[in-house]
This record gives sequence, structure tokens and C-alpha cells, in this order.
Amino acid sequence: MATPTRNRILETTAELFRKQGYNGTGIKQIVDQARTPFGSLYHHFPGGKTQLAAEVVRTAGAMYALLLPAVFDPAPDLATGAREFFRLAGEHLEESNWLDACPIATVALEVASVNEPLREATQDVFDLWIAAGTQYLSERGLAEPVARRLTIGMICALEGAFILARAGRSLEPLQIAGDLVSAQFAAEPARL
Amino acid sequence: MATPTRNRILETTAELFRKQGYNGTGIKQIVDQARTPFGSLYHHFPGGKTQLAAEVVRTAGAMYALLLPAVFDPAPDLATGAREFFRLAGEHLEESNWLDACPIATVALEVASVNEPLREATQDVFDLWIAAGTQYLSERGLAEPVARRLTIGMICALEGAFILARAGRSLEPLQIAGDLVSAQFAAEPARL
Repeated sequence: MATPTRNRILETTAELFRKQGYNGTGIKQIVDQARTPFGSLYHHFPGGKTQLAAEVVRTAGAMYALLLPAVFDPAPDLATGAREFFRLAGEHLEESNWLDACPIATVALEVASVNEPLREATQDVFDLWIAAGTQYLSERGLAEPVARRLTIGMICALEGAFILARAGRSLEPLQIAGDLVSAQFAAEPARL
Repeated sequence: MATPTRNRILETTAELFRKQGYNGTGIKQIVDQARTPFGSLYHHFPGGKTQLAAEVVRTAGAMYALLLPAVFDPAPDLATGAREFFRLAGEHLEESNWLDACPIATVALEVASVNEPLREATQDVFDLWIAAGTQYLSERGLAEPVARRLTIGMICALEGAFILARAGRSLEPLQIAGDLVSAQFAAEPARL
């Protein structure tokens, strides 16, 4: 059940994951920053840190799935939408002092080989993004296999560019990845 | 100074970082797995875990810089080399049970906002890869700005594809990212 306390714990944890990942974030830091007692965290998340993390990943993932239509809808064509998607991601990243990129990616790499329930949560989010992007781009006129391929290529390029951009405090990787993906969109003829 | 013990500590730590990242890897696990006493680790790395991690990142990074020419040299053209690069990365990842992707990326995301010496080490590695790739592709006939752009695009796509491939236990992201980058190479006319 969604309550203010439960939501505050989820939002605080998502923020800490973006900054420092799963293993770098302790339960004590979460309850301190969310201004809630330990007991409240375990009341809302009886499975402890793994359950909380899985819910953070799924909740943030569902929110981020809404960004693609929000950015692509006003764009005159998909190639422009793709370039704008990377430009806005870069703008937001720089404004957050290179902190606020993707709340899923760090956790995904940390847990992929060592925490199966959390790995499945990150897999579910990527699958959701791929399905949502494929459906959206199909509705904008791409054949479904092409829509799927471009969605996956765009997510890969974006996630990788976030790594280089945060490491190097530079927008260049996002600009280059955005150009690369945009060119790929421009090369695909829409059916409509 | 390189000694067998020092090298064993570096190699063990690199392996643990690939599997579980920086924060998930404890000093005790490193010395246990490297079969060396605590004192030996601090003898070789007086700066402790941060110094050790920075050296692991730089050492592994320098080794990985050699992979680009090793894969591209035998390829008849750069588009084929790029596709082969992603294919071999996927083959290796699957053989390692989705564990052995990049020893830098997880650490890079974990430390980007919270550990400045380690962030700099990851930045230096990415800069090294970009410089080495730019030089290699220039020698293979691309104009330098194009060579730089394709190198950065390739690293972004590869790092992002590793995240999705490990999360989803699937080669599809590496195949799609490889096709995307390969198409980009095919679209760039060589000067030579």
C-alpha cells in the first residue's frame, strides 16, 4: 500500500542508488535520510534491503518508461526525437552535478552475478523499457522488428554514455551516442 | 614493483570487481582469495583499498586497450572488425556465465559521485581507450575526428550492451549494439 512514509523511503533509496549504487547504500543511511525509524522500514519492507531495492528498481523503471513518449511526442520525426532524448538526458545529468543518471544501471551491474532476485528486477525493467519503446516506435510507423532493434540500441548507447559522461564529467559521450542513434533512426524508413 | 604476490592481488581484485563491483568486494575476501596475509596487501598497497582499486582499474584498462587492434587487425574492413568485436565480447561473456564483462564499468558507476581518486582512475582508462582507438582507426584510414567519434560511440554501445546482456542473460543487446556500430563504420568513407 502506498503511504507517504513508504514513498519517502522508496524515493530516498532511489536517490542514494543513483549516487552510490546498491552496496554503497546502507539501511542506516536510508532511514536517516528518509527521517523514519528502522521499524518503519521493516514494516513496509519485511524482506529488508533486497525487497526494498527490488521495489525501487521496479518503481523507478516504470517512471522512466514514460520519458520516451514524453520526449518523442513533440518531435517532428524520430531522428530528431532520439537526438533530443540524449540532449535532455545530458542537460539533466550536468545540472545534477553528474549524479542523476540512471537508478537501475549501477545496481544492475553490481547484482548481475550475485543477487538473483535483484538481477531479475533489473531484467524486468529493461524488458519493460524494450516493450514500451517497441510499441511506441511501432505506433510512430516503424516495423516492429526495427522498432525493437532501435529501442535496444538506444538504451545500450544511453546507458554506456552515462558511464563515460559521469566518469569524465563531460557531455561529449552523450552527444556522440545521440548522434549515432539518431543517424540509425534517420536510416530507417517509416511505414506510415 | 611487480612481484608474483602483488600481481596475484591485482588479478584477484580485478576478478572480484567484474563479478560484484567495488563496494561489494571486501579486503578480507581479496586476501583470502589471493592466499596472502593482510600485511602483504598493505605492504604492496599502503593506500589500502582505494589505492589497490585505482591500480586494478588502470592495469585492467591498459590490458583492455590492446583488444581493439587484436580484433580489428585481421578484419578485412572496419565494419567487419566492429561486428567481430561485439561478437567476441558476447562469446566471452556467455562462456563466463555472464560474469566477465568489463572490470571498469561497475566501479566507474559506483564511485563517480563519491570517490574522487577512483573516479579519476576510471576517467583515465576511458581517455586511454578513446586515444588508442582514435589513433588506431586513424591509421586504418579514418579522419581523426571521425575516428574519435566512432571510438566513443563504440565504447558507449559496448558498455551499455554489457549492462543489458548481464541483466537479461542474453546476447541480443550485444548483437544489436554491434550491428548499430558496424553500420556506422560502414557509413564512414576511409581516406586511404
